[in-house]
Amino acid sequence: MATEAKTHRVVVIGGGFGGLQATQCLKRVPVTVTLIDRRNFHLFQPLLYQVATGWLSPANIASTLRAILKHHKNTHVLLAEVVGIDVANRRVLLDKDSLTYDTVIVATGSRHHYFGSHHWEPFAPGLKTIEDAIEIRRRIFAAFEAAEHETDPEQLSTLLTFVIVGGGPTGVELAGALGEIANDTLKHDFRNIDPSKARILLIEATDRILPTYPPELAHEAEIALNKLGVEVRRQTPVTDVNSKAVTVKRADRLETIPCSTVIWAAGVEPSFLGKVIADATGAKLDRGGRVLVDPDLTVPGHPEIFVIGDLANYGHQTGKPLPGTAPVAIQEGKYVAKVVQSRVTGTTPPSFRYRDRGNMAIVGRASAVADLGRLKFSGFLAWLAWLFVHLMNLVEFENRVLVLVQWGWYYFRRNRAARLITNDPTKRNPP
Amino acid sequence: MATEAKTHRVVVIGGGFGGLQATQCLKRVPVTVTLIDRRNFHLFQPLLYQVATGWLSPANIASTLRAILKHHKNTHVLLAEVVGIDVANRRVLLDKDSLTYDTVIVATGSRHHYFGSHHWEPFAPGLKTIEDAIEIRRRIFAAFEAAEHETDPEQLSTLLTFVIVGGGPTGVELAGALGEIANDTLKHDFRNIDPSKARILLIEATDRILPTYPPELAHEAEIALNKLGVEVRRQTPVTDVNSKAVTVKRADRLETIPCSTVIWAAGVEPSFLGKVIADATGAKLDRGGRVLVDPDLTVPGHPEIFVIGDLANYGHQTGKPLPGTAPVAIQEGKYVAKVVQSRVTGTTPPSFRYRDRGNMAIVGRASAVADLGRLKFSGFLAWLAWLFVHLMNLVEFENRVLVLVQWGWYYFRRNRAARLITNDPTKRNPP
Repeated sequence: MATEAKTHRVVVIGGGFGGLQATQCLKRVPVTVTLIDRRNFHLFQPLLYQVATGWLSPANIASTLRAILKHHKNTHVLLAEVVGIDVANRRVLLDKDSLTYDTVIVATGSRHHYFGSHHWEPFAPGLKTIEDAIEIRRRIFAAFEAAEHETDPEQLSTLLTFVIVGGGPTGVELAGALGEIANDTLKHDFRNIDPSKARILLIEATDRILPTYPPELAHEAEIALNKLGVEVRRQTPVTDVNSKAVTVKRADRLETIPCSTVIWAAGVEPSFLGKVIADATGAKLDRGGRVLVDPDLTVPGHPEIFVIGDLANYGHQTGKPLPGTAPVAIQEGKYVAKVVQSRVTGTTPPSFRYRDRGNMAIVGRASAVADLGRLKFSGFLAWLAWLFVHLMNLVEFENRVLVLVQWGWYYFRRNRAARLITNDPTKRNPP
Repeated sequence: MATEAKTHRVVVIGGGFGGLQATQCLKRVPVTVTLIDRRNFHLFQPLLYQVATGWLSPANIASTLRAILKHHKNTHVLLAEVVGIDVANRRVLLDKDSLTYDTVIVATGSRHHYFGSHHWEPFAPGLKTIEDAIEIRRRIFAAFEAAEHETDPEQLSTLLTFVIVGGGPTGVELAGALGEIANDTLKHDFRNIDPSKARILLIEATDRILPTYPPELAHEAEIALNKLGVEVRRQTPVTDVNSKAVTVKRADRLETIPCSTVIWAAGVEPSFLGKVIADATGAKLDRGGRVLVDPDLTVPGHPEIFVIGDLANYGHQTGKPLPGTAPVAIQEGKYVAKVVQSRVTGTTPPSFRYRDRGNMAIVGRASAVADLGRLKFSGFLAWLAWLFVHLMNLVEFENRVLVLVQWGWYYFRRNRAARLITNDPTKRNPP
């Protein structure tokens, strides 16, 4: 046991998958832990698109950090905004305050970015926060409502055109959900419009969707999306977004697609703390802005600074960086907690090794793709596997029950009960 | 059957308890119905305080109007803002459009009001909409978070003082829930503060709380509130509210109570359409602004205009107006649908008669008061009765299951899982 006078102080920045896991694994280690987050909850990101499409409620996929950690006697939760790190003096800088650390674990993740075209954001919101999801939900369902009123055929077609930019898992999941909303959920809801006439485009700049999946599964996903009425356009980079249309490049020709709802699922940008750390320590950043970490997930020359999750570039295992997914962040969080523990007890841990258990993406009701290494499958079985894995990973048991009820309901009744238009109901579509 | 060429057009304004009930009861009547609401959902108001206190999610108590009415072939739902009624030409005026009616049912309800001190609103939000509930939830839980940071004892005590203005059912329910949050829910959550040290005041201008209940039940409720740590102050009118304090009058002396969270549950003001109708038809308004209606709930001299719910003053039964509650609105909605039907079929309906089935208010976990006419009781049994009645009245079966799971969870674990601080997380407390 460390003596009270000089307990090792660990500060964890960020309560996402990596930071929360590290904090939880430090429960019985004789250190004091402070977990800092600007939000009072941990968000289960993989289900966020289900909030954006009116399937689940925000609280079903968010658990308050204090509730999760209430019985961790060595842990403080601090609701604050981190503005920097003073590496030389080992201090985390907060908006009004600062905090000394012996070890800092930086797990601040990433946010969507627009490849230099930040002015597109108001017209094409991304999906990272609860607020993003509620705003996207508002735009989707408000577009159908505005269409029900519309008499001008051109304007009507603009209102019923939905463009999703980016063919990764989030883009695929959003496009599939939109296909189901148009064809199933809203089937009998309107009197003037036929929601199934909605046009849903999934636009991807490269030559394939789901780039981290095997090509055959990506192909299966595309077929499933087509069945839901989604047009998938590959090799179609976006060149402009405004309040009325998206402009894309197809075979060197520009095409303008009039649409009122655009969702951005095309790229992420790591937290600014990566640059702060690089500037202070000389650590290298990759092209995307992630910190190149040592085999034990520390910053070169700074064993007291760990970087994990979406903010870290760990390429020691396969030569290319690990993907920015929840399983990577969780395993990294677990690992750094072990390193901290072994330092306290004076042992040396092995390097970090990621154990890839596979990838899954949902396409629609009873349809998904799963890549579990040697086992690749799609369809209903993949969908069940997806549901099971995600359900089991939800933090609170109560939320598992609530999510299960809503999934079951949806499976049998195709209802999306959470499709409320909230925030500013008088605001019609963007901008 | 009416001929297609001249189907009677009914316009219902407002999708609350009264308007929705009227619309639903017109399903098989040979008329066309247009239900206008500015929101896309029906809100189950009596449970709104549970959203404001982090117990339920908004979607659990809100059902989209289109989903409820999807199989009503004679019914259109219109998401629009009503700006007036042109009584002479029988038109409902919308923000951009207008709509002809043969019969109009005005059910636009009420909103909280501040007895001429509208400038208090930013400091003391009321509880009428989903957005109100989310804002109040944010203020409550953000106050505890800010207190955890606070070092100045005076400021700390301000942050941990919660004032609820108004001792009606909503005020009592909010105060009870706050008592439980402070004493149970947050028990192990903080490290620097003891949430049970929070001071919760329920302030009422008249000489008793729950004025519509028998005095003995009001007394029981007060005892139950005291057990939860709530200070009840009767005969204490509020004279000022600002961002730092509430000023009250006690026995002719002014007292200032420093506090950072104030919730307004003290009064309601009927929709502006009451005045529009009065100006156009010469109908009388009562002191509160409600329309004095005829025994068949129409406006005197205008059998084509019905006014129901919180906007109507129906005093023909007992000499004093019926209260602004959900059961009154529901029964009035049912009744006017019957009147419309009998006009179409050429029969004459009897006058409206309200059948009072009693009142119930929840005070806390396993504690409520119930006044069912001859049967008056409180405690656990009243609580169970309250839960049962409210559960059965939720519109969608899925929501009944979701609410039941969350109530059960809360009963056994005292957890409020939906206590997210959303909207603007950087914003600390009011204003």
